[in-house]
Amino acid sequence: MIGQQMDSFAVATRSRNEFKDITDQVQAAVGKIGKKSGICFIYTPHTTAAVTVNESYDPDVAKDINDTLSRLVPYSRSYAHTEGNADAHIKASLVGCCAQVPVTNGRLALGRWQGVFFCEFDGPRQRKVEVRVLGSSA
Amino acid sequence: MIGQQMDSFAVATRSRNEFKDITDQVQAAVGKIGKKSGICFIYTPHTTAAVTVNESYDPDVAKDINDTLSRLVPYSRSYAHTEGNADAHIKASLVGCCAQVPVTNGRLALGRWQGVFFCEFDGPRQRKVEVRVLGSSA
Amino acid sequence: MIGQQMDSFAVATRSRNEFKDITDQVQAAVGKIGKKSGICFIYTPHTTAAVTVNESYDPDVAKDINDTLSRLVPYSRSYAHTEGNADAHIKASLVGCCAQVPVTNGRLALGRWQGVFFCEFDGPRQRKVEVRVLGSSA
Repeated sequence: MIGQQMDSFAVATRSRNEFKDITDQVQAAVGKIGKKSGICFIYTPHTTAAVTVNESYDPDVAKDINDTLSRLVPYSRSYAHTEGNADAHIKASLVGCCAQVPVTNGRLALGRWQGVFFCEFDGPRQRKVEVRVLGSSA
Repeated sequence: MIGQQMDSFAVATRSRNEFKDITDQVQAAVGKIGKKSGICFIYTPHTTAAVTVNESYDPDVAKDINDTLSRLVPYSRSYAHTEGNADAHIKASLVGCCAQVPVTNGRLALGRWQGVFFCEFDGPRQRKVEVRVLGSSA
Repeated sequence: MIGQQMDSFAVATRSRNEFKDITDQVQAAVGKIGKKSGICFIYTPHTTAAVTVNESYDPDVAKDINDTLSRLVPYSRSYAHTEGNADAHIKASLVGCCAQVPVTNGRLALGRWQGVFFCEFDGPRQRKVEVRVLGSSA
């Protein structure tokens, strides 16, 4: 499958707010895509979820980010959007639906403590993540 | 005009804080650029505005994001920057001046509910948005 | 050195929270890389720092962004992560570890007031910034 331009995978979340380490799935997608050098784009086509790069060693870091986002943008029925998930949309724009990681020698060139997280803000749901790599195959 | 690398368009905003759906203009730019597959970068060269991807179906979602940003980062004359638009600069760095969307078959590969928004934080003004697509023409 | 794909440089920060204008170093890296047109990615492989594009003319703008982030996400020992730098991790995901700037004629195509900032949230430290440009050499 070397040479394809993109790959995608599903993420099943289990809570309303959940950070899920997807580094291994992203790395596997980069391997399938086969580019050796460039930039990897990790994109989620949803409006109540996001993707971020942060510490993956201590799970409490993701918990703190998640909890602080909920403190800054609390769940409430008093937003204008009446579906009850306005907080999730707002968090999505604060974190962003596309993360970028350099690729070197066919692998994500993450820093020592960095991992890639899918950020669920309106789960539990079945979600999709798309991975593309722009760069060179050599 | 197939083959050019970038395109740009103007956005006229009408309020100090305003989210404007620019999905159609971005899609038109992608069509002019003519790349069939890759990543589209939507960049605004301003420091008191931003670009984000979020729900475009219910305009109340953009209103909630906008209002929440103003609650978290209120307009005030008490910031160090004395031009009266420090809040706008801060919001710009929280949301970001460059959004990325995958391109497939020459079109923005947005999720079902996703649209691209220009985020005005210090309007009304005449603004500029630049669109580039990196990828392949085939 | 024309033709290489990436370049990097060190940033020495002097405070716990500090925005440092790195526009000149990024421009020098873009010159070394030698691509004439495309997108420049400015990436920091750390989890308690970030990169943003904002006004570089009045240093008070960076001060306001920095101070407001500390108001929204205060330093505290009461986060779950016990290393005392949870606030820094949270700020890193709000701002993001990768910024993008268009490149035209071999130079960063920044807006008139835009500069690139390294955002230190857990200094003082010796930090690293990686610069890549995707695009064409002609």
